[in-house]
Amino acid sequence: MTMAVEEETMICLWKEARDLSLGTTPHVERLDHPPPSLRFLREYVSSSKPCVISGGALHWPAISRWSSDSYLSHAMSGHTVSVHHTPDGKADSVTPIGDDLCFASAFVKQMDFDEALARIISSGDPSSPFVAYAQEQNDCLRSEYSSLFDDVEPDIPWATEALGCEPEAVNLWIGNGRSETSFHKDHYENLYAVVSGEKHFLLLPPTEQHRLYVRHFPSAQYTHFNPETGELKLEMEQPERLVPWCTVDPVNPSSSFPLYCKGPKPFHCTVKAGDILYLPSMWFHHVKQTPDCSGRVIAVNYCNILYQYKSNHVFRHVTACF
Amino acid sequence: MTMAVEEETMICLWKEARDLSLGTTPHVERLDHPPPSLRFLREYVSSSKPCVISGGALHWPAISRWSSDSYLSHAMSGHTVSVHHTPDGKADSVTPIGDDLCFASAFVKQMDFDEALARIISSGDPSSPFVAYAQEQNDCLRSEYSSLFDDVEPDIPWATEALGCEPEAVNLWIGNGRSETSFHKDHYENLYAVVSGEKHFLLLPPTEQHRLYVRHFPSAQYTHFNPETGELKLEMEQPERLVPWCTVDPVNPSSSFPLYCKGPKPFHCTVKAGDILYLPSMWFHHVKQTPDCSGRVIAVNYCNILYQYKSNHVFRHVTACF
Repeated sequence: MTMAVEEETMICLWKEARDLSLGTTPHVERLDHPPPSLRFLREYVSSSKPCVISGGALHWPAISRWSSDSYLSHAMSGHTVSVHHTPDGKADSVTPIGDDLCFASAFVKQMDFDEALARIISSGDPSSPFVAYAQEQNDCLRSEYSSLFDDVEPDIPWATEALGCEPEAVNLWIGNGRSETSFHKDHYENLYAVVSGEKHFLLLPPTEQHRLYVRHFPSAQYTHFNPETGELKLEMEQPERLVPWCTVDPVNPSSSFPLYCKGPKPFHCTVKAGDILYLPSMWFHHVKQTPDCSGRVIAVNYCNILYQYKSNHVFRHVTACF
Repeated sequence: MTMAVEEETMICLWKEARDLSLGTTPHVERLDHPPPSLRFLREYVSSSKPCVISGGALHWPAISRWSSDSYLSHAMSGHTVSVHHTPDGKADSVTPIGDDLCFASAFVKQMDFDEALARIISSGDPSSPFVAYAQEQNDCLRSEYSSLFDDVEPDIPWATEALGCEPEAVNLWIGNGRSETSFHKDHYENLYAVVSGEKHFLLLPPTEQHRLYVRHFPSAQYTHFNPETGELKLEMEQPERLVPWCTVDPVNPSSSFPLYCKGPKPFHCTVKAGDILYLPSMWFHHVKQTPDCSGRVIAVNYCNILYQYKSNHVFRHVTACF
């Protein structure tokens, strides 16, 4: 399958999406209260428009409980968790290797929760030769971290009602201020609640995929973590496997990506402790974070898959252009 | 703007829309009760999937009252209405003119309602040299026919709640068994209630536009209605104006349209008196009708425009293909 939509149509769609729905100011809409489910479905999910619900998770027990490392330690006592290691906090991102570029995945290691938390916090220091991030996206809050699951809601009730389905996965993320997630998209509806610290999202709608210069890169993996020096070695995957990924780094955008640099700025929002971001499926997102006073950023996200959405309404507007 | 999506992508989308959402059986889903608004929004509007609500308008006073010509006559006494005249019941359709084809529009004439109704009923006879059809789509049930508006609901409550907006237009249609509407699409969400007689819809989703061979035809208009003979003359519009229209006639499909003939059959449904069809925006529809025992087919449709839908979610799935 090739990129099969001609430039003229792309521009028509991109501009119309901005004109009719998204606007050109880079602010994400912020709601003071959870929306009624019908309004949420109509104005955000069906319209594929993100929003932040301020304080939407403030009533969770996790908000106060998880501020304490000893609470987490006690609850997770004896449990092993997966920790992702990279030299610079950038997992799943386009990375130099020799004179080329590759798509680099983290080195993943199982360890006791206490060791994981200590490693995440200490590696937030810029002098650390590696960055640790607990970010298994395999429903981990209902598996590895199930002893913490009672501290959050099992689902976001107004979202479940609107979407008509329970979350397929609920994930816990524990990181520090050095972790950064490169621009990518997910195929599910995402409700992203921050419990401690802050997450800074840059967002671009599916209509602006062409601005991110998706290219194919050979995949590589960090291996051979040296526990003494904290060094990691990057190795190409064999046999070669190509991964399509966004080339644009919004933190240091290169002028060789004019569609990114010259177009409207990405939408941005800061999701603070207690806020929930609704991130529609297929929206590109880049994430940086600011830690709490203990050096941690903790978040929970709910993934919902709306099968019936994924197909048929596509040409509603494409055909309206002709 | 050209048809800018390559064949391979079209086929991918067409097949996926069928596989994931619409299915390949040609039946339109039928509901026994009006759906809760949240379900209607999620499963039909947002999914761009038609459905018929059996008996959804059976409680309207119009269902019994409009079966009587004298009731209509009395209510509309002294009112003038617009009547569309064609030689064969086919208005707004691709029609031969000399050795060529044109896009032919009806001859429209204002007349007293009584005369209009008599003309519509009598021209249902195959011996009539013309076919009359009252089908002004300019919110006519709230203007020309406002004295009948109290006999129906001002809107379809569960649809208005789901769509979050009042209808932009409410139209009345009074025709006979010879009127036929060629394949076309509308830009609004359509709720189509039959009050008397039956309407037979053929439906194709927006993803299958390519199967209808949309081409540009010079527009023409029926003029010079001869009240003695009932004959009409077809005249090209000057200066020439090209109209894009579907070439396929599903009643006599030509083998020169293989994408239509060899693909899955169009969805079809018969909407009986008291039923409501939800027809999503941008779906292609072709309509034939069967009259009631008095020779009439009467219907009311509600047009809702969902601005926020028309743009941004388009690429959700297009980009999912890559």
